[in-house]
Amino acid sequence: MEDEQRLDQVRELFHRIEELIPFNRYLGLQTESIDQDGAVVHLDMRGELIGNFQDGVLHGGVISATFDVVGGMAAMATAVLREDSVDETLQRLRPTSTVDLRVDYLRPGAGKRFTARGFTLRAGSRVAVTRMELHNEGGELLAVGTGTYIYNYADQ
Amino acid sequence: MEDEQRLDQVRELFHRIEELIPFNRYLGLQTESIDQDGAVVHLDMRGELIGNFQDGVLHGGVISATFDVVGGMAAMATAVLREDSVDETLQRLRPTSTVDLRVDYLRPGAGKRFTARGFTLRAGSRVAVTRMELHNEGGELLAVGTGTYIYNYADQ
Amino acid sequence: MEDEQRLDQVRELFHRIEELIPFNRYLGLQTESIDQDGAVVHLDMRGELIGNFQDGVLHGGVISATFDVVGGMAAMATAVLREDSVDETLQRLRPTSTVDLRVDYLRPGAGKRFTARGFTLRAGSRVAVTRMELHNEGGELLAVGTGTYIYNYADQ
Amino acid sequence: MEDEQRLDQVRELFHRIEELIPFNRYLGLQTESIDQDGAVVHLDMRGELIGNFQDGVLHGGVISATFDVVGGMAAMATAVLREDSVDETLQRLRPTSTVDLRVDYLRPGAGKRFTARGFTLRAGSRVAVTRMELHNEGGELLAVGTGTYIYNYADQ
Repeated sequence: MEDEQRLDQVRELFHRIEELIPFNRYLGLQTESIDQDGAVVHLDMRGELIGNFQDGVLHGGVISATFDVVGGMAAMATAVLREDSVDETLQRLRPTSTVDLRVDYLRPGAGKRFTARGFTLRAGSRVAVTRMELHNEGGELLAVGTGTYIYNYADQ
Repeated sequence: MEDEQRLDQVRELFHRIEELIPFNRYLGLQTESIDQDGAVVHLDMRGELIGNFQDGVLHGGVISATFDVVGGMAAMATAVLREDSVDETLQRLRPTSTVDLRVDYLRPGAGKRFTARGFTLRAGSRVAVTRMELHNEGGELLAVGTGTYIYNYADQ
Repeated sequence: MEDEQRLDQVRELFHRIEELIPFNRYLGLQTESIDQDGAVVHLDMRGELIGNFQDGVLHGGVISATFDVVGGMAAMATAVLREDSVDETLQRLRPTSTVDLRVDYLRPGAGKRFTARGFTLRAGSRVAVTRMELHNEGGELLAVGTGTYIYNYADQ
Repeated sequence: MEDEQRLDQVRELFHRIEELIPFNRYLGLQTESIDQDGAVVHLDMRGELIGNFQDGVLHGGVISATFDVVGGMAAMATAVLREDSVDETLQRLRPTSTVDLRVDYLRPGAGKRFTARGFTLRAGSRVAVTRMELHNEGGELLAVGTGTYIYNYADQ
C-alpha cells in the first residue's frame, strides 16, 4: 500500500479518537501530523483550561492529559505504520492502555497555541515507551514527559 | 489558635482553589477533608470525563489532573498546618508549582464516584513530595501517583 | 502443594538471584521474606556504598538499584505464588525486565541496616507494577519508588 | 575568567566526585566532557556490573546509579557555569540532593563501553530538572531518564 494511503488510515483513526472521546474534545486536541516515529497534536488556550487564575497559564492537568493522549497516539502510530498490513492491524488494534506517565513541568504554561509531540522510544509486541514535549507558539519548551503503554489487540 | 479554626482557614483556601480555577471546576473536584498529612477530594463520573467511549471509564488525563491538584493541596495543607502562625502562612503562601508528576494506572477507571487522596511524604522549606491514590466508590484502588512540588512564598 | 513448600521454591529462586547476579552480591542484598503480595530484602551499610563522603550516607544509586531488584522480586513472587502450579511456573518464568523505575528520595540514607520492601500493585499476564519503600533500622522512611516490569516466559 | 579555565575548575570538582565517592569509583565513572548544558560520563563493562548472568548485560541498577550521578553533574555544571563568579560558586555549592529519578529501560544493556549524557532542562535557583541518555559503543540508545535535584549552598 502507498505510504500516503497508510497515513490517511491512521489519521482517520486519530480523528475518531479526537471526536469520540469527550475529554479529548474538551481539551480541543487536533492532530497535526503522524509518522512511524510518533505524532503531533496542538491545542489552543481557552479560559476553561486555565490553572492559575492570577497568571492565566495552562493547568498542569491539561498538560498531563495531553501528554497521555499524544503518547498513546505515538505508540499506536508506530504499531500500525511498521506493519505491511496496515488495514489488518487497524482492525485488530484497540486503543492503548496507559501503564504509567511522568510529566516534568519546566516553565509556566504561558501561550496561545500549544504543540505536543509524542516520540516512540521503544515499541515491542506488547509494550511501548514514548517521550513527549510541549512547546508554545514561541517555541519555548514548557514540559516534557514519558509514558509507558500496553498494546491491546482484539484477538489477544 | 484552635485546630478546628486552622482547618477552617485551609478549607476556605481550598474552596477558592476549586472555585477559581476553571479546569478544577470542570473536573468537579470537591474537597472532603484536610489535615497536616494531606488532603482528600472526590469527583463524580460524568459523560464529559470519559476516556474510552466503549467502556465508559474515566479518562487517564482526568486522573492525572486530579492527582496534580490533590498532591498540591496535600503539600499546601502540610505547609500551613505545621506552622503555629496559620494566618500568616496563608498570607504568604502562593499556590505550589508542580515540578513533576508520575501516575500509575492500575485498573480501568470504572465507577460513579472517585476519591483521590494526597499524602505528604516529605515537606522541606522549599520542596514537597506527595503520594496519591484514587479509589472508586467500591473501594477499588484504580491508580497511584507521586508528585514533587515547589512552595512559593510571596516574600521569596 | 503446601504453602510453605511453594515459598521455599521461590526463596530458592531468589537466593540464586542474590548469588548469581554479581551486582546484587556487591550490594549485599539478602532476602528476608516473600509472599504473594511482595518481597522484603535488606542490606547492610558498608564504606563501598557511600554516596557522600562528608555525611557517609547511602548512595542514591544503591537505593535505586535495590528498588529495581526488590520490585522485580515482588513481581516474580506474585506471578509464581498466584498459580496452583508453582513448579511449572518456576520452570517457565525468566527474570523480569524492568520497563521503568521511579525513585523518590525523602531523607538522607543514614543508617546501618536498610530494609527494602516491594509491594505488587498490579500483576497482569505480561506487565506488573510495584511500589517500593526503604527504611533504616530506626524505622525511618528514607525513599519510596515505583516500578513497571515485563514478565518473561520461556515459551513466549 | 576564561571559559577554558572555568571548565577546568568544574572538571576538577567532578574528578573529586569520581574519586571520593566510593560507589562512583566502583561503577568506574569517568567524566568525558562538561558544558553549561550538561555533562557526559562513560563506564566500561566489567563482570561485577552484570545484571543477568545468562545475557551478561549491564545491571539496571548500574544504569539508574549512573543516571543519578550524571544528572547531578549536569545540574551542577549548569549552576556553576552560568555564573560569572565560578570560583565563588564552586566555594558555596555543595553536591546536589536528588529529589527523584525516573529511568526507562529501552533495550538490554549490551555493550563494552557505555556513555551517559545528562542534559539540564530547567535550572532555577533551588531546583534543577535533567534528562539522561545511555548509549553503548555502537550508538544504540539503551535507556533514558529524568531527574529532579535540589541545589545545596553552604550559606543557605
